[in-house]
Amino acid sequence: QAAMEESTSRTTKKKLVAVVGGGLVGSLNACFFAKRGFDVEVFEIREDIRKAKVVRGRSINLALSHRGRQALKHVGIEEKIVSQGIPMQARMIHSLNGKQYPIPYGRKGQYILSVDRANLNKQLLTEADSYPNTKLNFDHKLQDWSTETGLMTFVRPDGSKVQIKADLIVGCDGAFSATRKQFLRRSRFNYSQTYIPHGYMELTMPPVNGEFAMKPNYLHIWPRNTFMMIALPNLDRTFTCTLFMPFEDFEKITTGDEVIKFFQKYFPDTIPLIGVDALKRDYFRLPAQAMVSVKCSPYHIDDKCVLMGDAAHAVVPFYGQGMNAGFEDCIVFDEMMEQFNEDFSAVLPEYSRVRVPDDHAIADLAMYNYIEMRAHVNSKWFLFRKHVDNLLHFLMPKTIIPLYTMVTFTRTRYHEAVQRWHWQNKVINRGLLMSVSGAVLGGSYLLIKSPPNITNLLIPGEKIWSRLTELRTS
Amino acid sequence: QAAMEESTSRTTKKKLVAVVGGGLVGSLNACFFAKRGFDVEVFEIREDIRKAKVVRGRSINLALSHRGRQALKHVGIEEKIVSQGIPMQARMIHSLNGKQYPIPYGRKGQYILSVDRANLNKQLLTEADSYPNTKLNFDHKLQDWSTETGLMTFVRPDGSKVQIKADLIVGCDGAFSATRKQFLRRSRFNYSQTYIPHGYMELTMPPVNGEFAMKPNYLHIWPRNTFMMIALPNLDRTFTCTLFMPFEDFEKITTGDEVIKFFQKYFPDTIPLIGVDALKRDYFRLPAQAMVSVKCSPYHIDDKCVLMGDAAHAVVPFYGQGMNAGFEDCIVFDEMMEQFNEDFSAVLPEYSRVRVPDDHAIADLAMYNYIEMRAHVNSKWFLFRKHVDNLLHFLMPKTIIPLYTMVTFTRTRYHEAVQRWHWQNKVINRGLLMSVSGAVLGGSYLLIKSPPNITNLLIPGEKIWSRLTELRTS
Repeated sequence: QAAMEESTSRTTKKKLVAVVGGGLVGSLNACFFAKRGFDVEVFEIREDIRKAKVVRGRSINLALSHRGRQALKHVGIEEKIVSQGIPMQARMIHSLNGKQYPIPYGRKGQYILSVDRANLNKQLLTEADSYPNTKLNFDHKLQDWSTETGLMTFVRPDGSKVQIKADLIVGCDGAFSATRKQFLRRSRFNYSQTYIPHGYMELTMPPVNGEFAMKPNYLHIWPRNTFMMIALPNLDRTFTCTLFMPFEDFEKITTGDEVIKFFQKYFPDTIPLIGVDALKRDYFRLPAQAMVSVKCSPYHIDDKCVLMGDAAHAVVPFYGQGMNAGFEDCIVFDEMMEQFNEDFSAVLPEYSRVRVPDDHAIADLAMYNYIEMRAHVNSKWFLFRKHVDNLLHFLMPKTIIPLYTMVTFTRTRYHEAVQRWHWQNKVINRGLLMSVSGAVLGGSYLLIKSPPNITNLLIPGEKIWSRLTELRTS
Repeated sequence: QAAMEESTSRTTKKKLVAVVGGGLVGSLNACFFAKRGFDVEVFEIREDIRKAKVVRGRSINLALSHRGRQALKHVGIEEKIVSQGIPMQARMIHSLNGKQYPIPYGRKGQYILSVDRANLNKQLLTEADSYPNTKLNFDHKLQDWSTETGLMTFVRPDGSKVQIKADLIVGCDGAFSATRKQFLRRSRFNYSQTYIPHGYMELTMPPVNGEFAMKPNYLHIWPRNTFMMIALPNLDRTFTCTLFMPFEDFEKITTGDEVIKFFQKYFPDTIPLIGVDALKRDYFRLPAQAMVSVKCSPYHIDDKCVLMGDAAHAVVPFYGQGMNAGFEDCIVFDEMMEQFNEDFSAVLPEYSRVRVPDDHAIADLAMYNYIEMRAHVNSKWFLFRKHVDNLLHFLMPKTIIPLYTMVTFTRTRYHEAVQRWHWQNKVINRGLLMSVSGAVLGGSYLLIKSPPNITNLLIPGEKIWSRLTELRTS
């Protein structure tokens, strides 16, 4: 009788939303749906990380910025999370000769936050748990689900099976999403997974006399053209150093002595800070990890299922937007739920239509930034252009907005940020060409005569910009 | 005892090659491996099409050209297959006003062949069957295979399972390859599947008084910019007409009268030839079919498995190279088997290294030709350029070779053909700019002054070419 009643109340009042994955995006999304009054069940393949001894796997720290914060704000935990993060106001570039210089992320007072993945995930789970209409199910592995009925089958660690029928299935189960498998079986689903030739390895830089070994409020970067190392501060006053390098270069280093030789050549300033013994040991603790970029479309099947976060768009980590984009997915979906009165059959197609171009744009930008971070920042011309951008932004704050600012400190749609960036580059390069380039760069190879037509003028400008960039970086 | 002996002779003498898929590439590949003396087993999911009543599914006819013929020649059946094909020496363009004009495929005497897919497949199966060291297994569905041991599990229609251990597994099981699933479970496997917005539908044009309804030795094209129809001749004097159109346009047509109205507007010359009743009926026989482009890399796992044909690189059908590229895969692999003395651990990585860029090049070209066939051929400028290319090829046959010729009538590596094409275009456009364009095209918008530097000269030339193309087609 009670079961019957519950079932009736469900049909007449609120529908059941099944969130697959209790990671960052899954647990946050559970809060969004719970806030709307849906019955929410979260199914996570792993055990409850709040009870686990050691949490290992993905990278330790993440950069939280505006989009992510807005999503956290929506569920009321922005301040709590921000208070446990470490502000990073600039990149700190470490030259080979040991010199350091900062490149600010934005205007004064703008910063990104280094946050601890495991801590953030635990807090989000606890937050989701606090809603009476939300149930968290751990150790549930999604085996299959039906696009017809929404019936999902999970396998438990003891081999037993659990079945549940959801009105909406939200796949937040990461880059290797099990939810997505059903999409791949359907016609006209576009999908790509691209591994970059680089792997990554994490090393720890301990505190020195109880203090951070380097300036804490920076994202430290050692750009070395074909590879790089970065370091983010942690609350325990350690830094997590991440070395990004082609797999074949990782494989060339096979002994502790070779590790030290390599670091002496490229990252000499870090050896005393990480420690010779730790370097020799930790380099071989785990093999270098792969990085994948996943794109797909559409993100939905009928009114039954939608993909969000890495399940829909895993990106390489070089723009610090993976988590932020996933969190913004939750806001965008929620805004459409409002707009379309929680009608899944209207919300899901609209979500795919609107969100796919934005996620593809940030995936491409992350790939692009991969080159910028490890190579371009070594170029004087690049730094000059950064300064010009920032100066123009200061002079014309509404007309010229640096790309990094739009991506990191606003909710400008990603694909619009890219379009605007292209437009700004044309305008700025034209200006530079006509006024600055002659004086600053000189040189007879710039003999360009263009007809007095804006379109024609812009094309050579862009050509020259890309050529100069090449010249300056080569 | 006998089984023991057989097993011993296998280990000491020849290894077992399991070919998954008995389609065009699978059955041809079986011949290649059988010729080398391997024990070969082919596993096909469907029944034996030589015994089936109706063979339905993929498109009816295919364009066989040089690469495919070379592969058939290697196994001694080129002449037999060619004798059953219909030469097509040119495209026949059907304008909206009913006019027809041919665009030759190459030099005089060069042609592609319209062949029947089912007939070709049957002949290849029979050829494979004729080798004593080859066994064909039909109604065998690959369920799983082990990258460690090479143990494969097949399911039969009655639900029973068959297991076999192969030394080499060759996945020739098409765009939706079951063999490839094992690749997708591994790290650092790059994969993409892209559906184009267009679907296709096949219609039959019957003979008129026992003769072909149109000139038979042509590939007929009705280019209509955003969509097109093509027709290939069959041995039974019918034509197979294939309509390529965006799915949403297919869906707009819902009644027989709308079909006729649509054909009256865009393909009026075909209505009497296909017939009003047939059109009204056949348009609704099957929904429009999707077309997918699949790219992946690498093509191999260790020394155990290799993908060939559509399983490795399904392409859209607009360059007529899908089958030809798959057949050439067999030659390329066979050449490497010779080079590396049949050492799988050397051949497989080399095959991936060499073949991936070529297959990706033809996939991109097929996408490009999709636009050329339906839109560019309507442009006078495009036709003028075709004529210039052909003239230059005639004058300098070793220096200027049209792209279509390199792809269709030579075994120039696909990616080299593309590189050479880009180079040729630069040279030709430069020449055209300097000598012809002023006279032929005139117009003040061509006021370009470039510095006397070849590189600089080429870039504007290319820009103008693309601009002119846009102008002429718009």
